[in-house]
Amino acid sequence: MPLTVESLNPAILNVEYAVRGELAIKAEEYRTKLKTPNNGLPFDRIISSNIGNPQQKGLDQPPITFVRQLAALMEYPALAELAPGVFPADVVKRAKQLQEEIGSIGAYSHSQGVPLIREHVAQFIQERDGFPSDPKNIFLTAGASAGVSLLLSMLISSPSSGILIPIPQYPLYTAAIAQFSGKPIPYYLDGSADWNTSPEEVDAAVKKAHAEGTHPKALVVINPGNPTGALLSEDVQIELIRICEKHGLVLLADEVYQSNLHKPASHPFTSFKKLVSKLQSPVPLVSFHSTSKGVMGECGRRGGYFECTNISPEILALIYKMVSVGLCPPLQGQIAVDTLVRPPKKGEASYPKWKQETDTIHAALAERTNVMAGRLNKLPGVECVNSPGALYLFPRITLSEKAVAEAKKAGKQPDALYARELLDETGICVVPGSGFGQKEGEWHYRVTCLCPGVDDYVGKLEKFHNGFVQRYGV
Amino acid sequence: MPLTVESLNPAILNVEYAVRGELAIKAEEYRTKLKTPNNGLPFDRIISSNIGNPQQKGLDQPPITFVRQLAALMEYPALAELAPGVFPADVVKRAKQLQEEIGSIGAYSHSQGVPLIREHVAQFIQERDGFPSDPKNIFLTAGASAGVSLLLSMLISSPSSGILIPIPQYPLYTAAIAQFSGKPIPYYLDGSADWNTSPEEVDAAVKKAHAEGTHPKALVVINPGNPTGALLSEDVQIELIRICEKHGLVLLADEVYQSNLHKPASHPFTSFKKLVSKLQSPVPLVSFHSTSKGVMGECGRRGGYFECTNISPEILALIYKMVSVGLCPPLQGQIAVDTLVRPPKKGEASYPKWKQETDTIHAALAERTNVMAGRLNKLPGVECVNSPGALYLFPRITLSEKAVAEAKKAGKQPDALYARELLDETGICVVPGSGFGQKEGEWHYRVTCLCPGVDDYVGKLEKFHNGFVQRYGV
Repeated sequence: MPLTVESLNPAILNVEYAVRGELAIKAEEYRTKLKTPNNGLPFDRIISSNIGNPQQKGLDQPPITFVRQLAALMEYPALAELAPGVFPADVVKRAKQLQEEIGSIGAYSHSQGVPLIREHVAQFIQERDGFPSDPKNIFLTAGASAGVSLLLSMLISSPSSGILIPIPQYPLYTAAIAQFSGKPIPYYLDGSADWNTSPEEVDAAVKKAHAEGTHPKALVVINPGNPTGALLSEDVQIELIRICEKHGLVLLADEVYQSNLHKPASHPFTSFKKLVSKLQSPVPLVSFHSTSKGVMGECGRRGGYFECTNISPEILALIYKMVSVGLCPPLQGQIAVDTLVRPPKKGEASYPKWKQETDTIHAALAERTNVMAGRLNKLPGVECVNSPGALYLFPRITLSEKAVAEAKKAGKQPDALYARELLDETGICVVPGSGFGQKEGEWHYRVTCLCPGVDDYVGKLEKFHNGFVQRYGV
Repeated sequence: MPLTVESLNPAILNVEYAVRGELAIKAEEYRTKLKTPNNGLPFDRIISSNIGNPQQKGLDQPPITFVRQLAALMEYPALAELAPGVFPADVVKRAKQLQEEIGSIGAYSHSQGVPLIREHVAQFIQERDGFPSDPKNIFLTAGASAGVSLLLSMLISSPSSGILIPIPQYPLYTAAIAQFSGKPIPYYLDGSADWNTSPEEVDAAVKKAHAEGTHPKALVVINPGNPTGALLSEDVQIELIRICEKHGLVLLADEVYQSNLHKPASHPFTSFKKLVSKLQSPVPLVSFHSTSKGVMGECGRRGGYFECTNISPEILALIYKMVSVGLCPPLQGQIAVDTLVRPPKKGEASYPKWKQETDTIHAALAERTNVMAGRLNKLPGVECVNSPGALYLFPRITLSEKAVAEAKKAGKQPDALYARELLDETGICVVPGSGFGQKEGEWHYRVTCLCPGVDDYVGKLEKFHNGFVQRYGV
């Protein structure tokens, strides 16, 4: 008797993750096909703008030298003697300190993460916010995703458990909610007003859920936004905290883009931890951060952490138990967290290079985001919020009746049709808005702002869009 | 309203993982206490024999140089030029080949794992077994545990889904089955006969489960055994495959200790993949392997893979979807898998050192296991199978009525009392047999054979045991 799809956990079938979905798989097929001569494809490379993966081939954002020097020394400590002069003194010193604490990075660490690194995370949070942070409340993770999945698996206690998520959202949330058989409770962000979050809308969503027999357990907030790039004002954040207090919700704050700020003067980042502390709010809060984003962009090593605030020792012990079954987060991810929260300081040997490298990446991303938004906004039927944060733009595209009908015929969402034709024609892979959720009758796509050579890149998007409009009308 | 334990997913409360449970937490407390002067503890160090973690502090099994040189070059490719002569030519060549394929290890890879590394895994399996293996059927993972959890989460489709597990078992299985609300179906291994697996016992367990309304979905086999160290004969393996055929079970083969063989002539390892291929059996098989065990012992980088046999493309696509939500396994774990399946060959520059290092570790482990088993067997009330494989011994201990009564009074399992007193007196942390499961009225503990200085180490175990017997009688 063969194993059939029908015999599997039905919740698995409901999981969707468009960032690495059908289009991304098609893009990989094209990438393979490009290696063969006379492949007949109208482009010479694939640009994977579907995923915030800055160091991937073709984008090639350089790694921060400091991060890699430390990682190499942790792998092979003898290098400090074997290659004298290659490693700056502060890197050698830090590697020694971490080696004394950890021993070999080939060993499992404490399941919650190396204690010394958790201390450094707590210091980072304390300096960022001006409020205390305790290493006991911090869990190092294999990227933020692992932490989010774990928390959702614990909070969803029955099929009527609901999780409030922004729409549009990063599809990890809908995927994990489906996997653990919970109910997503959408609250809609306002695309006509810089993707603002409306506390009234969130409050209304809670009430509607209750009326429908769903029990809201947690509020997910992504700040800076993904896919929107929006930043919350402190006023809105405080109102959201009050809503959590009122309705007994856990606040899950996805803050992985906290250092991707393109206009920090007008659009600064404030952590939820800071505001919960300042208000002395009792709201249970879990805040997520990652080494995959920011300017480090070290996605491949799977590093991250979450901090628990107002979570009881009993529940912390349960979280510990659950992470211990998976043994520990990858050590190189943990080492990367250490560099994230403890970058070189002025006066240290690595500082000048680190400063120059990180400044360059910050500036390039801000510039590219601005240029792309400006040019996309000039296209017929395209409106694009000029993201003040994160790594993405999320342009709204108006699609003609003809395009909608054509998509329907092909059994696709209209923006999936748009994205598919974009891929087929230009080799650029984006994610259709339907993968993130959007208001009925609206269409978008998410595109990363990571591709160098922005002129050529946007040129391709423009040329395609104009052709699409010619084919299908506006 | 604070977050309460009662409001959480009740399945989480049922999860137990003794390897990192209460005793391991106590051991960490002692480790911290040891750093203070006049701590009053009767030992000067903690020996964490509860977990197969060869490179941990205090055990300090050295990493394989080849593995670490490659890892360092992948972190910081410029080292090939910056430190000329430090890296053997074959390591430099391999790093270049992997860099060409992967680009930066700071990028997310293919969610299923780097294609070239999956090809190498397939070649390894093919050479090991003499039957074809396809990279399409291989998923790289963050250690074997991540793969096991994923498969169980997919196979458990309702609370009546059952998973056959050996007793004693590695507690990942009971933990994951509890997490995903399935039912464990125990089949008992025979401690009086070298921890043999009896196919009749497995068949009887399936029938009993059916009679009780449980639907068996999969058979877990751990070979070499954990905690038992036993190796299955091919005859028994074939009978187990036939049982899976007969009852429509998926075979989950945990083969992470496949290279930890202390008596390979009399107790060789045969993979289930080889036998399923040889028999042309239609049984759906998932085989797990890891970089954490063997002589590499690179636990901290979280590397592993599973191979699917007789699993349909539709189900492979579902597995891909699920792993894509977590983005990708850690790149340094994937690189370690490459070194696991493609060690240096005779004639390559790294070969002599690699051979000497791996031979030394193999020999030390086999010798230590043998000495420990011999000495433990001489203790009153202790019977210990001399494990032919894996990293552990699982001695049976006879406990007196007085000891059982004392444990009951303390609300503990009797072998947990024994293990607790062992820790309190010697600083040696083991896992009580109750954490793995055992026949009613039998008591055991699992101890790793990783501690150097075996004479001193076993001496402590002996002294403690004799004192325990004096206190409580036999």
